[in-house]
Amino acid sequence: MKALVYLGPHSKALQDRPKPSLAAPTDAIVKVTRTTICGTDLHILKGDVPTCAPGRILGHEGVGIVEEVGSGVTAFKAGDAVLISCVSACGKCVNCRRQMYSHCTTGGWILGNSIDGTQAEYVRIPHADMSLYAIPADADEEALVMLSDILPTAMECGVLNGRVQPGCSVAIVGCGPIGLAALLTAKFYSPAEIIAIDLDDSRLAVAKRFGATTTINSGDGHAAEAVMKLTERRGVDTAIEAVGVPATFELCQQIVAAGGNIANIGVHGVKVDLHLEQLWDRNITITTRLVDTVSTPMLLKTLCSHQLDPTPLITHRFKLDQIVEAYETFADAAKTRALKVLIEA
Amino acid sequence: MKALVYLGPHSKALQDRPKPSLAAPTDAIVKVTRTTICGTDLHILKGDVPTCAPGRILGHEGVGIVEEVGSGVTAFKAGDAVLISCVSACGKCVNCRRQMYSHCTTGGWILGNSIDGTQAEYVRIPHADMSLYAIPADADEEALVMLSDILPTAMECGVLNGRVQPGCSVAIVGCGPIGLAALLTAKFYSPAEIIAIDLDDSRLAVAKRFGATTTINSGDGHAAEAVMKLTERRGVDTAIEAVGVPATFELCQQIVAAGGNIANIGVHGVKVDLHLEQLWDRNITITTRLVDTVSTPMLLKTLCSHQLDPTPLITHRFKLDQIVEAYETFADAAKTRALKVLIEA
Amino acid sequence: MKALVYLGPHSKALQDRPKPSLAAPTDAIVKVTRTTICGTDLHILKGDVPTCAPGRILGHEGVGIVEEVGSGVTAFKAGDAVLISCVSACGKCVNCRRQMYSHCTTGGWILGNSIDGTQAEYVRIPHADMSLYAIPADADEEALVMLSDILPTAMECGVLNGRVQPGCSVAIVGCGPIGLAALLTAKFYSPAEIIAIDLDDSRLAVAKRFGATTTINSGDGHAAEAVMKLTERRGVDTAIEAVGVPATFELCQQIVAAGGNIANIGVHGVKVDLHLEQLWDRNITITTRLVDTVSTPMLLKTLCSHQLDPTPLITHRFKLDQIVEAYETFADAAKTRALKVLIEA
Amino acid sequence: MKALVYLGPHSKALQDRPKPSLAAPTDAIVKVTRTTICGTDLHILKGDVPTCAPGRILGHEGVGIVEEVGSGVTAFKAGDAVLISCVSACGKCVNCRRQMYSHCTTGGWILGNSIDGTQAEYVRIPHADMSLYAIPADADEEALVMLSDILPTAMECGVLNGRVQPGCSVAIVGCGPIGLAALLTAKFYSPAEIIAIDLDDSRLAVAKRFGATTTINSGDGHAAEAVMKLTERRGVDTAIEAVGVPATFELCQQIVAAGGNIANIGVHGVKVDLHLEQLWDRNITITTRLVDTVSTPMLLKTLCSHQLDPTPLITHRFKLDQIVEAYETFADAAKTRALKVLIEA
Repeated sequence: MKALVYLGPHSKALQDRPKPSLAAPTDAIVKVTRTTICGTDLHILKGDVPTCAPGRILGHEGVGIVEEVGSGVTAFKAGDAVLISCVSACGKCVNCRRQMYSHCTTGGWILGNSIDGTQAEYVRIPHADMSLYAIPADADEEALVMLSDILPTAMECGVLNGRVQPGCSVAIVGCGPIGLAALLTAKFYSPAEIIAIDLDDSRLAVAKRFGATTTINSGDGHAAEAVMKLTERRGVDTAIEAVGVPATFELCQQIVAAGGNIANIGVHGVKVDLHLEQLWDRNITITTRLVDTVSTPMLLKTLCSHQLDPTPLITHRFKLDQIVEAYETFADAAKTRALKVLIEA
Repeated sequence: MKALVYLGPHSKALQDRPKPSLAAPTDAIVKVTRTTICGTDLHILKGDVPTCAPGRILGHEGVGIVEEVGSGVTAFKAGDAVLISCVSACGKCVNCRRQMYSHCTTGGWILGNSIDGTQAEYVRIPHADMSLYAIPADADEEALVMLSDILPTAMECGVLNGRVQPGCSVAIVGCGPIGLAALLTAKFYSPAEIIAIDLDDSRLAVAKRFGATTTINSGDGHAAEAVMKLTERRGVDTAIEAVGVPATFELCQQIVAAGGNIANIGVHGVKVDLHLEQLWDRNITITTRLVDTVSTPMLLKTLCSHQLDPTPLITHRFKLDQIVEAYETFADAAKTRALKVLIEA
Repeated sequence: MKALVYLGPHSKALQDRPKPSLAAPTDAIVKVTRTTICGTDLHILKGDVPTCAPGRILGHEGVGIVEEVGSGVTAFKAGDAVLISCVSACGKCVNCRRQMYSHCTTGGWILGNSIDGTQAEYVRIPHADMSLYAIPADADEEALVMLSDILPTAMECGVLNGRVQPGCSVAIVGCGPIGLAALLTAKFYSPAEIIAIDLDDSRLAVAKRFGATTTINSGDGHAAEAVMKLTERRGVDTAIEAVGVPATFELCQQIVAAGGNIANIGVHGVKVDLHLEQLWDRNITITTRLVDTVSTPMLLKTLCSHQLDPTPLITHRFKLDQIVEAYETFADAAKTRALKVLIEA
Repeated sequence: MKALVYLGPHSKALQDRPKPSLAAPTDAIVKVTRTTICGTDLHILKGDVPTCAPGRILGHEGVGIVEEVGSGVTAFKAGDAVLISCVSACGKCVNCRRQMYSHCTTGGWILGNSIDGTQAEYVRIPHADMSLYAIPADADEEALVMLSDILPTAMECGVLNGRVQPGCSVAIVGCGPIGLAALLTAKFYSPAEIIAIDLDDSRLAVAKRFGATTTINSGDGHAAEAVMKLTERRGVDTAIEAVGVPATFELCQQIVAAGGNIANIGVHGVKVDLHLEQLWDRNITITTRLVDTVSTPMLLKTLCSHQLDPTPLITHRFKLDQIVEAYETFADAAKTRALKVLIEA
């Protein structure tokens, strides 16, 4: 089968690889019909993710059709249309029992990382009962691909951890795909203000279309001051960090109100400064999280009831044959204005 | 001044009464510019509220202009435009400290009940700092009257107590003004399904316009079965009781899902049956509440940010001179299709 | 093997039955070393539990040694010492995913109810990975039997649902085994007052030994008045119903403070009156629950760290051969003063 | 009257000062009968607290007798025995309404900081109704002084923010008075493990007496490794930072389990490193807080019900005349082994 293979830092190729087979009774083999590329795949390609060895098929998002299930799989059978979760979970270990599926002792984020992933014609899904979701008959398959990772990540790490509530003020620092997904899911809770912050005016224009009440280009170095002015010098109730570099985390600390939340979504490669000398008495909560996909069933319901339309996140479409080009388009977002690129297998 | 006075069961009149004066340093006198009539006022007129003695000026909702403040009032001064809360709260007693303002030891719902109320040209507001809210400059005064009681009551007793969440299913049992206000505020949390239930098709039509995903006329006695069918026999996550009679509370028990919530808003005059023989093992939560008005600041923000538009609740407008006619219109809602009647002083 | 078999209303016998065998890959067979009798077993014997058919081996509590596991069991192997949970859970269905294991679509309370139970030499445990717990090497096996049902039930339905907090006041209405277990687990949260109420002075004396700060014999019909006096007429923050009859639920309604909780543990056979005409404005929360056993891992930790000693609940000890006598002792608690009777297999 | 006055960095003196008088109707004048010295007072003396100007009477803890109240004070009268809270709160501003009294717009921690404090014969208490607490008739006055600041601070910033729960593991990093107070209040929730960490063996011995299950002297630089070993390499559920320097905050990051909490109590003078490159996917919550004194009523109840005995925190006793000596004793804790020094006025 065709598969996009990581060959080591800065190297990848569409290769021919053997079709996967069941390795455990709880596995399923899924024929992938649609997948996409995540910012984390670019991190792997930079060599930043040591758990991902050369030779690995990338990808942890997608929808498809179940091809075959192990004897221990009870919720799915061949022919079922399914959503693939980026997180695999046994449902039984100490962490799964507290719904922290991201830290499942035999799962977590392993797809396209420590085991082969979804950017291929077929993929093996461990713990299939807990890691696949039945697709409603009339659902939009493209929209569903956004529920594999980006929407639950934005919802859980950003919106739920950030305790977004009706009437509150939210700043979204970074308006790439994940920041925009945070904006979409923040709206579930009817905040009074959504302040979108980015360096790129075209992304801010998208944020505005998605429902931001104010946009701020932080290129002039005065974003913090602008937020404080907007909020009568209180700061925002929730600052969502959706980039993953020290400068944006610093900005979050400058704009969070007393009693507020900094919800980190960004994947950080280096440590940051935490200004406890200023924040120790400010009643702040800072959270980090790898998505647990606990919100996936809820997101499916909101999608089906048309409370949520993630399709504006999809800017480009490719066939699996063109996946290398899809990677280029996605990586060069400043020029291509790509958000999510959809790949049809 | 003109004032609507309760004269005993089934008797009321617009009378001339002396203008109120400050009785404590924490009081304010407010010139009422707009008020409205609440279902509770009708309860009083039936003689159902023993704390309300004949001679009382009715009314616990309204907006106005501060006329005079006591020496202990620090947040308001003469000339300020204010929203009047239906609940008066000292902010300091054991119940206020836990934000249960409804049970303030020297306040609670006293306006138009144990002290004179707002259906008059002027009203004395005890504990003014905690019981008035500054009106934003550009706010719609008519919309604001809906924030005195009906919207915080619907939000707190129905939506917050009912734990409405994104993707969940909600049944609103009773689509009078309070049920419709629950519908409006439930939408803050993006539920997937809002099932509106009533005996009156015209009210159901309003519920549909307000955003109900399904409406059920319970007149045929099959409402419970209809809800179970709609929810694949699970029942609803949240059943909001917005009537206050045994039959509607019974219906809530029939349609609530395992693990679900029954949030009572209705004012009940008689006891009800609780089917613990069926519910003891169903992981149900039942709540009662007199509004604490903790949500008022949030509702003000959502109103100002256009997340909330309560004006469709207002169906009729009168002058204070016409308040007896306003009462008749409101009481005869089946015929007049009145929801909230606005009274301009 | 020997097994206690339900033969229909008011009839049971110790019989010889075939040893159970694996029926699904996720099953385990456990050699029972210790079990006990639950109040629910007495309900079954009265014919009150229609899901339990004649011929059923009773019992849903116990510890033992794993004899054999199915191919899908990963957490246990033959020879492991295990605690048996009264609730079987797949861990994967819609209810298990929200940790409402009591309503697992293929589990819940089925042991000794719709499938054969633990009052036997061997028992088949479905969903073994989720329904058994490894026993710590040095743990007291008798104490552990109390973790199968009574302690998690008391903790979850009574203490957690009742939101017992440091400094609060708790009334425990009914001081049988489950009420006493609620008392033991309420102490985890350091309430300021624990008021134990019962008709039997000897049970009240036990409650006092277990840590009740006050005891009230409700035989004179003045228990509500006594509680109101003790609490300066506020009532208690949490009333735990641990009997399951209308009179005790009525008492809970009379003594709960504004803003308080009524946590029902009792198994009710008939409906009760709910005084919404008095409680609609009292900000009360009423909960029902079948134990989800979410607290079992925590209880194991508190047992091992000596925060919890449930052994005083055990009053009598029998061999499996004597189980009919054990039932008589347990059923005649008023005379025998039995709390939990331990049965060694 | 006699008063301990801050004269500028490293300078203080017991001086004669005029008795304070009422400045607002909501003020009370309290005759101080007992006070104490806080670590924050030492910070002021180092010149680290810019809001505290030379000439200020220090002290924000104490009990006393009300001497006089303003016309707006309703809860207290001359002669009442009262506990003085370290935080003054109006109860009405936007922050007080959300129970974040620490950020009251006209209060917060002002006593002995921006206004004169309690290390004197008399003190003026603003917002007296919200900032004083009636002392129960039979309460231990010395114990009560511990409720002005150290116990609510430990409880709220450490235990509540750290979400200590039955069965969990807690590490207390720093066993000075505030760390020991965190240990005392953590026990309200029956954690399974309390690991006390400090550089001083005598303080660790005290921690052991107070209920620590393990003590670790971090002097050898291997504390993190020791904690990981103790917790089977999971780390602790809650790490309480009770020192306020980068090294201890670093240690908290090394020992917190996935899904765990770092609750900061320490007053930090410089920024710290936050290792988001390691923690971004670890589902960690980090909190900061200035005490809101929301737990004070609860602590009073636990004190009166003997759930809490803070008197072992008191190691030395002085008269107000000896307060300079008391400061020396408290500052030289390594040698004097002082925890809290009580000063009788």
